Amino acid sequence: MEQYFVNKVIEKNNFIIDDPETYRHVAKVLRHKKGDVIYLVDETETLFEATIEKIDADERQISTNVSKSTFPSTELPVAVTIACSLSKKDKIEWITQKSTELGAKTIIFFDSKYSIMNWKSNVIEKKVARLQEIAKNAAQQSKRRIIPKVVYVNKLKDLVNYKAETNLIAYEESAKQGEISLLAQTLNQEPKSLLCAFGPEGGFSPDEVDYLNQADFLSVGLGPRIMRAETAPMYFLSVISYKYELTVK
Amino acid sequence: MEQYFVNKVIEKNNFIIDDPETYRHVAKVLRHKKGDVIYLVDETETLFEATIEKIDADERQISTNVSKSTFPSTELPVAVTIACSLSKKDKIEWITQKSTELGAKTIIFFDSKYSIMNWKSNVIEKKVARLQEIAKNAAQQSKRRIIPKVVYVNKLKDLVNYKAETNLIAYEESAKQGEISLLAQTLNQEPKSLLCAFGPEGGFSPDEVDYLNQADFLSVGLGPRIMRAETAPMYFLSVISYKYELTVK
Repeated sequence: MEQYFVNKVIEKNNFIIDDPETYRHVAKVLRHKKGDVIYLVDETETLFEATIEKIDADERQISTNVSKSTFPSTELPVAVTIACSLSKKDKIEWITQKSTELGAKTIIFFDSKYSIMNWKSNVIEKKVARLQEIAKNAAQQSKRRIIPKVVYVNKLKDLVNYKAETNLIAYEESAKQGEISLLAQTLNQEPKSLLCAFGPEGGFSPDEVDYLNQADFLSVGLGPRIMRAETAPMYFLSVISYKYELTVK
Repeated sequence: MEQYFVNKVIEKNNFIIDDPETYRHVAKVLRHKKGDVIYLVDETETLFEATIEKIDADERQISTNVSKSTFPSTELPVAVTIACSLSKKDKIEWITQKSTELGAKTIIFFDSKYSIMNWKSNVIEKKVARLQEIAKNAAQQSKRRIIPKVVYVNKLKDLVNYKAETNLIAYEESAKQGEISLLAQTLNQEPKSLLCAFGPEGGFSPDEVDYLNQADFLSVGLGPRIMRAETAPMYFLSVISYKYELTVK
């Protein structure tokens, strides 16, 4: 089954798909026919089973008969924000795709001292739009009910504007010093929302860590092995899922 | 600090690095000088701190003074085998790199019914060697004490030759049916070794699942979201690390 997001609220039993991209994918790429079933998620994050009634090639519209699906939600029970230092194009695209598959609600990229890149102000809008499109496609593929929001933050200090109930820094030095229990302790407290900041390959600078610590970001270790910058957020999200979705109390 | 694997047992206080690739990296790429410190892991999986005493450009050798490091091991306390269905070159290279960063001990690629690829017998050796090199580099970068072994298995049925104490299948259908507790139950039993098999994008065929189930592979769900074939092993390894390395009993 495939799933598509629609930018509308589905209220009636009939729904017409007129989004050009969705039309093209359903009618042209996958060549669906009358009677085929696809899934739609509307703006209220509700999942509908949609049976195709008519594909109108002239109007480029698909008429469907819809009913609410009984599938349980695929969203994490905690709102997780992943904040990653800016990196190369392929890495940030990859982080966006994988963080979406793994359940993040917000994906922030920020500029930090040892980032190997920064974005000029005239490209930010285009780059964020591209990442937002990747997040949408990954959300459809992984059957999410929401599309994670992708945000660019120019200065590390502005990260505090996105603070969650609990805020963490994945800090290699913590891991090296044998810090092994703070993440589990934090998750045991069952915060409603969580943000974790991940540094670049070169790590956060000591003054960046100081700043975040003073803003109530707790430094946590993610185990004894050194992970690449793009691997650590995947580790974090996987652990959140295990803890809250697969561990029976 | 960088770390290099040496194919020898280090027994004395002096050690001469004569591996051409390591020589080139230390002396030419990073341009280390006398007095610099690097780390070496020998065949007994012991970590040594090695102070460079002399770089001999004529002989392409580096003389070092070594002493055992007191850093704790970076290996998972359980031997984990990741078995993935064959996929595109970039995906299997990526799985190899990330599984190494996340602590896998053995990485198997196998041919399954819905795999989009298979390897002809005349390319297997070369392809495995290339993946083994990726594993070595990732192991050095993530400061592992071992290089994971990369194995190709022609038939799914031959996977049973690599069985661990506990054997699992990451099975999307289990997740869809709301199976949420078997992974945690399994990990609570603290097996000494674990193998988990991951299907291709198209999933395992029902008869493949039957075969593995009959060979005592337990089907487990990895949460409600659909993950791409390369994401699921990362989820699994991250969870293993969290459970055994970060969760205080």
